[in-house]
Amino acid sequence: MSTLLNSFHETKYQLTGHGKRDIQTLLKAFQTIDPKLESDKYGQGKVIEEFQNKLSTYLGKESAVFFPSGTMAQQIALRIWCDQKGEKTVAYHPLCHLEIHEEEGLKELHHIHSLLLADKDRLIELEDVMTLPDHVACLLLELPQREIGGQLPPYETIEAISSYCRKKGIKLHLDGARLFEILPFYRRTAEEICRLFDSVYVSFYKGLGGIAGAVLAGDHSFIEKSKVWKRRHGGDLISLYPYIISSDYYFEKRKDRMEQYYQDAVELAELYNQCSAAATIPVIPVSNMFHVHFQLSKKQLEPILTEIYRETGVGLTGYLAETGEHSCSYEVSIGDQYGKVPKEKLKWVFQLINENLHQ
Amino acid sequence: MSTLLNSFHETKYQLTGHGKRDIQTLLKAFQTIDPKLESDKYGQGKVIEEFQNKLSTYLGKESAVFFPSGTMAQQIALRIWCDQKGEKTVAYHPLCHLEIHEEEGLKELHHIHSLLLADKDRLIELEDVMTLPDHVACLLLELPQREIGGQLPPYETIEAISSYCRKKGIKLHLDGARLFEILPFYRRTAEEICRLFDSVYVSFYKGLGGIAGAVLAGDHSFIEKSKVWKRRHGGDLISLYPYIISSDYYFEKRKDRMEQYYQDAVELAELYNQCSAAATIPVIPVSNMFHVHFQLSKKQLEPILTEIYRETGVGLTGYLAETGEHSCSYEVSIGDQYGKVPKEKLKWVFQLINENLHQ
Repeated sequence: MSTLLNSFHETKYQLTGHGKRDIQTLLKAFQTIDPKLESDKYGQGKVIEEFQNKLSTYLGKESAVFFPSGTMAQQIALRIWCDQKGEKTVAYHPLCHLEIHEEEGLKELHHIHSLLLADKDRLIELEDVMTLPDHVACLLLELPQREIGGQLPPYETIEAISSYCRKKGIKLHLDGARLFEILPFYRRTAEEICRLFDSVYVSFYKGLGGIAGAVLAGDHSFIEKSKVWKRRHGGDLISLYPYIISSDYYFEKRKDRMEQYYQDAVELAELYNQCSAAATIPVIPVSNMFHVHFQLSKKQLEPILTEIYRETGVGLTGYLAETGEHSCSYEVSIGDQYGKVPKEKLKWVFQLINENLHQ
Repeated sequence: MSTLLNSFHETKYQLTGHGKRDIQTLLKAFQTIDPKLESDKYGQGKVIEEFQNKLSTYLGKESAVFFPSGTMAQQIALRIWCDQKGEKTVAYHPLCHLEIHEEEGLKELHHIHSLLLADKDRLIELEDVMTLPDHVACLLLELPQREIGGQLPPYETIEAISSYCRKKGIKLHLDGARLFEILPFYRRTAEEICRLFDSVYVSFYKGLGGIAGAVLAGDHSFIEKSKVWKRRHGGDLISLYPYIISSDYYFEKRKDRMEQYYQDAVELAELYNQCSAAATIPVIPVSNMFHVHFQLSKKQLEPILTEIYRETGVGLTGYLAETGEHSCSYEVSIGDQYGKVPKEKLKWVFQLINENLHQ
């Protein structure tokens, strides 16, 4: 483990996350559960069916299915839309999860090609979508675009993209790994946003802070097909309840805290932006997340942060990613931990950053 | 839920299994765990690495990796061997899990064709293997052959098949979903049996009775490749610890009880075979499992069994599978429940079966 991560774990307060991902995360979720509750069995049973129904209602879709992972759920969604159109091409952002984090699973397992829309450092616009050739089966939009700090287009842009895709016979899929997190910014319900999409994936361990697990939602026929693919992928486990029960618990616990996390993110980003050596993307966050960029090498920044953690007992990040010879960055994702940090501590931390980075 | 299953669940004693698969199965496994134990993270961390090391040692392989499911692990094993040989053909039994329970995942995701060896109702013999064409990349052997009652070939047959495959450049993969269960019959260690195979999959929720999960073992290079495919399949979850901790717990709890389950299966099969209307396959079990075949329609047998459950408080099976107009069958898998049934109850049950089926 790196010095910075060690030192982060030793702090009393952290500016990001919900706290340690230890086994208490699981055990807490089980404390209120009927001790005789029976396991789901290969996708059937009360525990899985009730949660799927709850989520399909919440997302405003006909049907929903629980998956062990979003990687599995999204590849399958794209495969179904490709099969339906009889094409093998989809489109998404160059920093889409499928493009950079899945070892080319979509290509290797499904033989689906991807058109990369927009530049790496900006959002997909309607103009980009209008360049798509007719043989594209599905466009995937990720809201917020995580790898560029969690940026969001105006709601009207999504509406326009949705209308355009419907007219052109291109299915629109939502990578909603952080869907719960963006509702406060749009001042819309999940249902209102999902209405613009043909299929939707949501995750239970990002802002919600569960153990793992995902839900894919869409119309009945789409979801029935996705269950067949779930089995093919090896995701139709005899028992998924450890993930389902924790997903349900943290969904209920945190879905209504997203407004607070969002406001916290705006507040914290402002503190960062007051430091001359730091800047956040987006400048004003639109969800619970943003990226912090420092004009300082990782090697220079690491000991400074470690010392601040030691002195104040407040951790800012557990890692630094090099972005250039003299720059580095990290992701901030606000959760329950931020609200526990005393305001005077917060002030002290940023005072120290300012002092240290002005030397 | 069927009447028979309902009635089975209401019995005080059951002749099969470890008892209800409710959430206590998970919670019990966590009772002895350090409450601060940290989650694994995308395949890394103490909890997953230690268990993988334990299993690679137990199976006598260089390396091992934990998978959410056997479906995923085995498709990946076959894919790696196919890629290595540059061929797209494997061979296995007609009732192999990949052929009948995975919605053609191997073909749909990996484009691998399968040659079906032997007839449905018998084991693969050396003579069958000797008919394999050179372009077969891998032969999968399932020990015991579950769908035909859990039959096993003599150890010498496996040795001969293994030698033949090595000579011919055909990789040999073990579907060891029930590997722990067959060790007492062969009087061999897992390591001795696995030595005959290039790759091995074992499961933690069959005879061991865990929640879900599998391990794939082989040499370093094979296992490193399998991790890439695990990510592609969507199986590289941020946290797998609910399955790992329960797998470890039930592995330690039950791996040394397999001898007892095996002896119990032999005893119970004998009781069945003393009924004129029933017969078991195998006649003398070679593991903790066997199939019971009745020369009676499902419709005739179901009310008789339901009445016996009600009268004695002992459940024999929760389901009946039709095998013909006047025949049906079910699987018996011995676990902790069998030993709790008082012997006089057992005698009474079979006395009632005999009486009722002689009318």
